Amino acid sequence: MTEIPRDHPRYESLITREKIVEGVRMGYTSLQGLVAQGRGEAFDYLIGEKTTESAAVAERAAVAHILLAGNPIISVNGNTAALVPESMVALADITGATLEVNLFHRSDARVHQITELLKSHGASRVLGGKGDKRLDLSHDRAIVDEEGIFSADVVLVPLEDGDRCQKLVEMGKTVIAIDLNPLSRTSLSATVTIVDNVTRALQNMTLFARDMKQQSRQSLLEVVGTYDNSKVISDALYAIQERLKQQSEERGIRWI
Amino acid sequence: MTEIPRDHPRYESLITREKIVEGVRMGYTSLQGLVAQGRGEAFDYLIGEKTTESAAVAERAAVAHILLAGNPIISVNGNTAALVPESMVALADITGATLEVNLFHRSDARVHQITELLKSHGASRVLGGKGDKRLDLSHDRAIVDEEGIFSADVVLVPLEDGDRCQKLVEMGKTVIAIDLNPLSRTSLSATVTIVDNVTRALQNMTLFARDMKQQSRQSLLEVVGTYDNSKVISDALYAIQERLKQQSEERGIRWI
Repeated sequence: MTEIPRDHPRYESLITREKIVEGVRMGYTSLQGLVAQGRGEAFDYLIGEKTTESAAVAERAAVAHILLAGNPIISVNGNTAALVPESMVALADITGATLEVNLFHRSDARVHQITELLKSHGASRVLGGKGDKRLDLSHDRAIVDEEGIFSADVVLVPLEDGDRCQKLVEMGKTVIAIDLNPLSRTSLSATVTIVDNVTRALQNMTLFARDMKQQSRQSLLEVVGTYDNSKVISDALYAIQERLKQQSEERGIRWI
Repeated sequence: MTEIPRDHPRYESLITREKIVEGVRMGYTSLQGLVAQGRGEAFDYLIGEKTTESAAVAERAAVAHILLAGNPIISVNGNTAALVPESMVALADITGATLEVNLFHRSDARVHQITELLKSHGASRVLGGKGDKRLDLSHDRAIVDEEGIFSADVVLVPLEDGDRCQKLVEMGKTVIAIDLNPLSRTSLSATVTIVDNVTRALQNMTLFARDMKQQSRQSLLEVVGTYDNSKVISDALYAIQERLKQQSEERGIRWI
């Protein structure tokens, strides 16, 4: 990786970019994944490169859903494998969720490589290698494991494609998406939409899970029951607006 | 390139992405360039994937500056080489500007490759290979040609790094930037900031140049003299706001 000075004002963002470029070099991440990373960077800049209050509310609701689920699955793709392998393993470990490798640009070699990567970070069980069921979608991105995503009641899809997110919702699943564009099809169709950087989101969720695991089932049900996803999306749009306004005022640009 | 159906709602954007991925495969574009492309896609989505009125005003002012200049240079980097080689050659041809290859991640091989690419699209003269002067910047991105960017009075920098843009302005040059983030350091330091997709911007500029070439020097001076860059940036921010508002209303998300 290119050396990034610790005191650089955009250190976190630059390190993330280096990790994803490294993911391409290692074969985990597709070239299209790099473009997706750039889109995320732009939206992260727009929400202020921090977890908003409203995103934290969504993260807590997501953890409650996972803790309440019968068969929760955390879907792992090429970008999350490059960026947050440790956090995904930690979250699965704490919540009892199962990891499943699920790639948009699927190849057996990439599935195998990412499975090994997760295992090297301590994952005990990683699905995705069987690919014995299909979602009703064209293209290899339809392939899933029967005991995993296919039969899951709750699926966490960090950085998911809109089509696939919609399909999982149509199958009656609770879908938790992490997506920095509050108006993407993924964000608008998910049950819980976390508008936050995937690195921050998974770290927060792991912390929340440690605490929420001690809570009663009833109190988790209340977290889920009082959650309003449409409000979370509205709040994210408001955060973008406020950030643009603040940035333009700081730079002496008139805000119309 | 991956086949993209002509009737896909995001055809132009997807074709652009395929071109840049192809640029990486061919060696013109860096992996970091793919991330930059993604950032651009996000901001293009936010301005509505079309040339705003205000961006067209900036494009006309830019053409006037180029037509009035003594030694205008069009700087070519890895992303623009992959995306718009024909348009850059056409614009240089019509306006009498000179093309100079100027890379952030410089290598002699990449400079040579991009030079050959531009020549294959009909460029008669391409600078950037000598690299006999340096801007006052660390890193190889400082390297320029003495007869090109170093002594230019007007430089068009599509997709430029903030540091380098500022440096060129400090050297007293008129700098025309094409940048989809209206609040980037590049956008805020350039003399003329074109907040538009580089593909649309260069096509428009080529059209405008054909027409404006016939105009008197006095009328070009008036275009330049009445231009207000700060207003153009304000307008771009307003366009983003309006677009987010419209998109959220269409999708039934409350706009706070």
